[in-house]
Amino acid sequence: MTAAVRCTATRLADGRELFYFDDSEPYVSGGATRELVDRRPLPDRFATVTAADGTGAPVVGPEMRLDPLTGEWIPMAAHRMDRTFLPPADACPLCPARPGAEYTDGEVPATDYDVVVFENRFPALVTPPGTDPTAPGRLVDGEPLWPARPAVGRCEVICFSAEHTASLADLPPRRVRTIVEAWAERTRRLAAEPGVAQVFCFENRGREIGVTLPHPHGQIYAFPFVTPRTRVMLDRAAEHRARTGRNLFRDVLDAERRARTRVVLESEHWTAYVPAAARWPVEVHLAPHRDVPDLPALDDLERDDLAAVLPELLRRLDRFFADDGSVPLPYVAGWHQAVVGEGRELGRLHLQVLSVLRGPGRLKYLAGVESGMGAWISDTTPERIAARLQELAP
Amino acid sequence: MTAAVRCTATRLADGRELFYFDDSEPYVSGGATRELVDRRPLPDRFATVTAADGTGAPVVGPEMRLDPLTGEWIPMAAHRMDRTFLPPADACPLCPARPGAEYTDGEVPATDYDVVVFENRFPALVTPPGTDPTAPGRLVDGEPLWPARPAVGRCEVICFSAEHTASLADLPPRRVRTIVEAWAERTRRLAAEPGVAQVFCFENRGREIGVTLPHPHGQIYAFPFVTPRTRVMLDRAAEHRARTGRNLFRDVLDAERRARTRVVLESEHWTAYVPAAARWPVEVHLAPHRDVPDLPALDDLERDDLAAVLPELLRRLDRFFADDGSVPLPYVAGWHQAVVGEGRELGRLHLQVLSVLRGPGRLKYLAGVESGMGAWISDTTPERIAARLQELAP
Repeated sequence: MTAAVRCTATRLADGRELFYFDDSEPYVSGGATRELVDRRPLPDRFATVTAADGTGAPVVGPEMRLDPLTGEWIPMAAHRMDRTFLPPADACPLCPARPGAEYTDGEVPATDYDVVVFENRFPALVTPPGTDPTAPGRLVDGEPLWPARPAVGRCEVICFSAEHTASLADLPPRRVRTIVEAWAERTRRLAAEPGVAQVFCFENRGREIGVTLPHPHGQIYAFPFVTPRTRVMLDRAAEHRARTGRNLFRDVLDAERRARTRVVLESEHWTAYVPAAARWPVEVHLAPHRDVPDLPALDDLERDDLAAVLPELLRRLDRFFADDGSVPLPYVAGWHQAVVGEGRELGRLHLQVLSVLRGPGRLKYLAGVESGMGAWISDTTPERIAARLQELAP
Repeated sequence: MTAAVRCTATRLADGRELFYFDDSEPYVSGGATRELVDRRPLPDRFATVTAADGTGAPVVGPEMRLDPLTGEWIPMAAHRMDRTFLPPADACPLCPARPGAEYTDGEVPATDYDVVVFENRFPALVTPPGTDPTAPGRLVDGEPLWPARPAVGRCEVICFSAEHTASLADLPPRRVRTIVEAWAERTRRLAAEPGVAQVFCFENRGREIGVTLPHPHGQIYAFPFVTPRTRVMLDRAAEHRARTGRNLFRDVLDAERRARTRVVLESEHWTAYVPAAARWPVEVHLAPHRDVPDLPALDDLERDDLAAVLPELLRRLDRFFADDGSVPLPYVAGWHQAVVGEGRELGRLHLQVLSVLRGPGRLKYLAGVESGMGAWISDTTPERIAARLQELAP
C-alpha cells in the first residue's frame, strides 16, 4: 500500500480552514465533484465580548483561568452552550453537500469526500488573528491567585468517511491509512504553530458518552498547555529515566510483551495490550514496537500496519459485550503523543482506548471518588478484560 | 442547639460494624424500638480468592495495583459487579427494618433510626482481619513496574434519614447537626486506624450520576493512599506556603470574600462561593472562616451553623435549573479534609459541591479531553453560576 493522499485546503464562510484528504482517483475534491460556495450567514468568530467577572474587560475569544488549587488551566467555553445537538440525519453538518444544491448547508462544501478535517465551529480553544500567545494575561478580580489568559490553540473535526452510518472499525485499511495520514499531517502542522504545547487526536464514539453527532468523526485539539494527565506521565517518565536511564513507556510495553497475559493483538510493528493497572471497565493500549514520539514520526510500513491493526482492534471492542456486535462499545480512543516543548524526549506514541460501559446498558459513572478525589476504582480486572478480547481474536 | 447525640454500636450477620447516631428522646436504638437479629445468609467477606493475573497467588479481599504511568493506586473491586441496582422501594436495604418482622432483611436491624453508619457490603477498600497494612505487597507477573497491595481501608454508608424519600436539603437543622456529628466522629475514628491516609465523607445524589439507591445517604471512604486530587492540591499548597508563608486555601477564601463577585452565601462561621476557576457546570465550595483541618476540629458553634447553612445551600442548588424545584440537581458533595500523615499541616477543611448537569436533561460527559487527558473545559463561567445562586437567596 502506498500513501497517495492529496491534501486540498479551502475556507468556510466564517474563515475557518478546511482540508480534504483524498485517496481515490479521481480525487474527490476539485476533481470529480464540485465544491459549493459556503454562503451561510455564520456569526463573527472573533467578536469582542466583555469579561464575565464584572471587570468589564474586553475579551476576544474564549478565556482560560488558572485553578489555584490544582495549577490546571480551565478553558471557559461559555459560547459552546448553543452547539448543535443530535440533529436529524438529513441535516447532519458532517455529511457532504447535497449534489445539485447551489450552496452548501453543512460544514463540508464538497459533494463527496474521502477524509476531511476542518476547524470546529464551537471551539473550546481558538487563536484569534493577531493574538500573541506569549503576551501576559490579566488577573481575575485583580487577584494574583487568579491569572487568566486567552484560551488559544485549535479544535478541529476530522470526518472519517462521507457515509453517515459508517464506523472507523469497518472502514477498509486504505481509508484508515488516509486517516492516519491526516492525523500525522495535522499533528505536524499544529505542533509548529506558536503557543501550541501538545496535539491530541481522539475519537469519542457513542451517545452514552455524550456524542452529539453520530456521523463517524474524531477531533484534534492543539492545547496551549500540557494537559494534567500528560504532566503526570511526564513526571513519572522523568523519574524513571533518572533512576534507570530508560524510557518508561518502552519498559511498560516490553514488560507487557514479556508477561503476555494481557496482550490482545500483535502485528509486525504494533502490540495492543490491556495495561496491568487498567482503571476503566474496558481499556486497551496500542503501541508501536519502535520508539517514536508521535504520529508524524511513523514510517510508511508502520502506518500501513496500523491501518490494518486499528480497525481489527475496534471491531473486537464492538463485540466485547455481545458476540454478534449488537452492543457496539461507546469509547474514547486518544493518541498520546510527545509534547512540543520541554519533556518531548520523554514521550512515546501510544493509543489509549477506554470505555465507561460496564455491561449492556450499564455505565460506570464518575461520582464522588472519581470527580471529587480523582481516584479511580476498577470494577473488573485487567486480566478479565484481556481474556475477553483474546477470545474474540479472528 | 446542643449536641445530644448517642452513638450505639452493633454488628451485622457477616461481622460488619454498624453505628446508630440518635438525637431524639427516647433514643431510637435500644430504646423505643427493637433491634432485630440479622440472620441473612451473607457470604464470607474475607474468603481467599486466587489472583486473576494467572500467577495463582492467593488473595484475601480486594487488591490495588500501582499504575506505572501515573503513580496512582487503582483498587480493583471486581466483586462489586454484583451489587444491588435500584431495588424497588419496599426492598430498600437502607430503610429501617419492618415493625413486626422477626428478622431484619435490610442492612439496618432497628425498626427506626435517626442517622446510621455501617460498613459497605460491597466495599472497594476493606482491611481483612490480621492484615498488616505496612507489609510488602507482591509484583504482578513478577514485574517491578507493577506493585500490588491489599486495597485496605474502609467504605462506609451513612443514612441521613429513616425516611426513604427524604433529602439532606430538607432535613431539619437538628438532624443535619447529627449528620455532622456522625461525619466528625467517623472521621476521627477512621483516621486513627493503621494504614489510613485520608478520610473522605461525600454524597452522590441523583440517578444521572449513577446512584443505585434513592434512599438519602452518603458514603465515607478511608483511603490507604492520598488521592490524586488531594496530592495535587497539597503540592500546590506546599509551593504557596514556601513562597508566601501562608495557607493556600485560606488565601483563596480571603480573595473570594474580598472580590464578593462569586460569594453566594455567608453566615457567621461559613462562606459559600463559586471558585474563580470552577470547572463543572455547577460548582460551589463551602469553607469555615476559622482555619480548621477537618470536621472533628469544628467547634459546637461552627457545627450548629453548618447544620443551617448546608441544607440552605443544597436547597438553592435544587432550584438552580427550575425555581419550583422540579429539576433537582444531581450532585457530588465531598468534604476535603487534611490528610492523616505528611502534609496534614497544609490542609484546610472545605466542602466541594459539583454537578455534571448543564441544563434540564443535559449532562456534561467526560469524554476524550477529560477522560483521556484529564483536562477540563467549562461550558459556562463561574460568574454565571454565582449570579444564579445569588438570585435564589431567600
